[in-house]
Amino acid sequence: MATRTQAEPQAGAQGEPQVQDKRIPKTRIRAGTLRAALKDVTGVVEGRNTTPVLANVVLEVIDQRLTLTATDLDIWAVRDCATDDRSGPDCKAWLDTIRMFSVCLPAKPLEAVLAEFDADAMVTIEAPAEIDARWAGQVTVRAGKARFRLHALPVADFPLLGAMEIDAGFEMRCSALADAMAGVDHAISTDETRYYLNGIYLHPDNLDLRLATTDGSRLALWSIDGPDGAASFPSVIVSRKTVAVLEKLLAGAIKAADEKAEPPRVLVEANAAGSRLRFAMPAEDGGEVEIVAKTIDGTFPDYRRVIPDAPEHRATIGRSALAAAVKRMAVLADGKSRAMKIHFAPGQMTLSVRTPELGDGSEELDCAYDGPEIEMGFDSRYLRELLGAIASDTVALQFNPDALGAVRAAGWVPDAGGGAGSETGPLLQVIMPVRV
Amino acid sequence: MATRTQAEPQAGAQGEPQVQDKRIPKTRIRAGTLRAALKDVTGVVEGRNTTPVLANVVLEVIDQRLTLTATDLDIWAVRDCATDDRSGPDCKAWLDTIRMFSVCLPAKPLEAVLAEFDADAMVTIEAPAEIDARWAGQVTVRAGKARFRLHALPVADFPLLGAMEIDAGFEMRCSALADAMAGVDHAISTDETRYYLNGIYLHPDNLDLRLATTDGSRLALWSIDGPDGAASFPSVIVSRKTVAVLEKLLAGAIKAADEKAEPPRVLVEANAAGSRLRFAMPAEDGGEVEIVAKTIDGTFPDYRRVIPDAPEHRATIGRSALAAAVKRMAVLADGKSRAMKIHFAPGQMTLSVRTPELGDGSEELDCAYDGPEIEMGFDSRYLRELLGAIASDTVALQFNPDALGAVRAAGWVPDAGGGAGSETGPLLQVIMPVRV
Repeated sequence: MATRTQAEPQAGAQGEPQVQDKRIPKTRIRAGTLRAALKDVTGVVEGRNTTPVLANVVLEVIDQRLTLTATDLDIWAVRDCATDDRSGPDCKAWLDTIRMFSVCLPAKPLEAVLAEFDADAMVTIEAPAEIDARWAGQVTVRAGKARFRLHALPVADFPLLGAMEIDAGFEMRCSALADAMAGVDHAISTDETRYYLNGIYLHPDNLDLRLATTDGSRLALWSIDGPDGAASFPSVIVSRKTVAVLEKLLAGAIKAADEKAEPPRVLVEANAAGSRLRFAMPAEDGGEVEIVAKTIDGTFPDYRRVIPDAPEHRATIGRSALAAAVKRMAVLADGKSRAMKIHFAPGQMTLSVRTPELGDGSEELDCAYDGPEIEMGFDSRYLRELLGAIASDTVALQFNPDALGAVRAAGWVPDAGGGAGSETGPLLQVIMPVRV
Repeated sequence: MATRTQAEPQAGAQGEPQVQDKRIPKTRIRAGTLRAALKDVTGVVEGRNTTPVLANVVLEVIDQRLTLTATDLDIWAVRDCATDDRSGPDCKAWLDTIRMFSVCLPAKPLEAVLAEFDADAMVTIEAPAEIDARWAGQVTVRAGKARFRLHALPVADFPLLGAMEIDAGFEMRCSALADAMAGVDHAISTDETRYYLNGIYLHPDNLDLRLATTDGSRLALWSIDGPDGAASFPSVIVSRKTVAVLEKLLAGAIKAADEKAEPPRVLVEANAAGSRLRFAMPAEDGGEVEIVAKTIDGTFPDYRRVIPDAPEHRATIGRSALAAAVKRMAVLADGKSRAMKIHFAPGQMTLSVRTPELGDGSEELDCAYDGPEIEMGFDSRYLRELLGAIASDTVALQFNPDALGAVRAAGWVPDAGGGAGSETGPLLQVIMPVRV
């Protein structure tokens, strides 16, 4: 990865201070490559900024590598990629005329301009010879016969990423971290008064690595064997925005990977206090991307208390059939409470909904259950999201006779003989019933 | 098409008034068929209705045909399709137990419920035996093990479509009407104070049938040979919403047509005053759909005045290259005025834009032009829409030396020898320059 300190314009090549450098701060790069790199950092840029410089992205070109940096002061995204300065038969002459440089350009307009070029068009980015870190002026972006001049701000005004202490870290497959985040992200709270719930609680638990989310009405917990180094990792709360940025980048890393090569891996690092996280992974076109993010400064509640330990009753049912029925019935779930009733009876579950204005609906489903008849109400959206996060074909719902006690949900593998079977998969969820 | 008067419940079969009818008002129909039919009428239903009954759709079942009606009191959409009452080995017994009926059901919830069934699921719709036009109560919609009961309003409260006087009419290919509307709809004005511009001016002109739209800054005019009957058709203004509804239905008719059969045709009818229009065309699954719409009561201005008759200068240029360049430059067009400059010089057009905050851009294009150098400003969105409506590979821009006079744009076929060539296609557009 290119260095993260900003490049100072250099007065000349080795030991020739008296000769004026005639080389120009410019580079050339395939439009598709630059577009993909830019997309990886603009997810961090906020739509409205009280600090104008934060609507910008810094482009730094050193030794035929281009590094892009964007930030919202909580998250820094740094992406590098290869330029095409070494491509083509004219590269020798081209390399003689260029020098390294940094410029600070408006992120969204640059993205919009690049979107209108063919992916294979060669884009030239050029700044005036006299630029330095305090320079503001016009940077030319050119492809074919189209030429844009974008207002650049001084690079010195941009809060570039400083050095970060690294005290703990581990590495894991990108797909493993992506699956874990996708399994729990639906239960992240959006209640800003409980800011310590606005993210994923990433923490070691004995030999496990765990990701937990809760909004007070439900809990999602993902537990896997901790990779080497995870046991000494601090317990941290990863903000919702960091999660969203990472999910996109992980998907990009997985998509960009050569299927025959080793699956791509992500490096996860933290400082001792757990106040800063760093994630680094491969990106498209042989590039690399890193995210440095502040964690949420708060105490995540002890979620273990809400997990029913040995629930008395258990119903197992096909996940996709239940998900389809919940989706159908949700059409008539009350707009405000979104309440859906589930009636459990031996061998059968019945979903029902009622809206005063529109009418009611019900659907019966066969299930494996031999407990007493019991009826519980749920938020239908929570039910849908709970089922959507489960990967296995069968889901097990476990609960105690009290109709308002927590319900524990997990993927399930039934025995071949139709016996008790066992919970499977890394995901355990808890959902609180509602009064209906 | 099924009759449009509402079905009265009948006391019994022929001449047996004393025997109580034991048959049930119910029908069965493939979910996909009913969904497609419903989609054709719900485009008319407004999201918010001060009159609650207008959020509903009337379902009328007579002799194994189901007819759906929806309205906003300006447009009525009536769609019919076949039920599956005659399908399956049990149809004899089924037909003995059913009778014709009408019910009035909430459109959006019915649509939402149907969306959750498999397209091939058999949906049963059933009302209580005692229903009549004044009845309100619950109608059961069932498929598989799912059952919904939707609140029905009295059919008597629904403003069904009455009989309409037909004094003029013609028939044309659905694709011809769809192309004509798509060619001019972008220039429909959204300025409600000039309500008479809020639609397409459909009118005969000698032997032509013409569609014209203008918002004061631009004009789009589509002229084709009038089909038989068009010459005596009244001049009418077809509202923007009617146009949008028709465009969807025409696309559906074209898509549903058997490629080997005759291309589908639309019947266009009007009353003598031109205050009501009727459009009838085929629909998916062998159904039919008709739209009856009030026209806009106003006088469309004499658009012929703004068309430059014999403009002095002409530039011809490849449409797609110009459209791509306009789209690129529009990225930096000023957010408010959207102004883009075009500089004409012999053999060359140069587009340029400037935004005080972001910067500027320019692009040169080769074109056939031998007039004097002249620079004009345009609204870049209007330019994009103008070019988007043209189908031919080359576009001709014609204008007089006055840089603020109207510019006439049309499709163009260049001569093989690069000579003058000729205008082609049914679409002529006029765009007014803006000061920049």
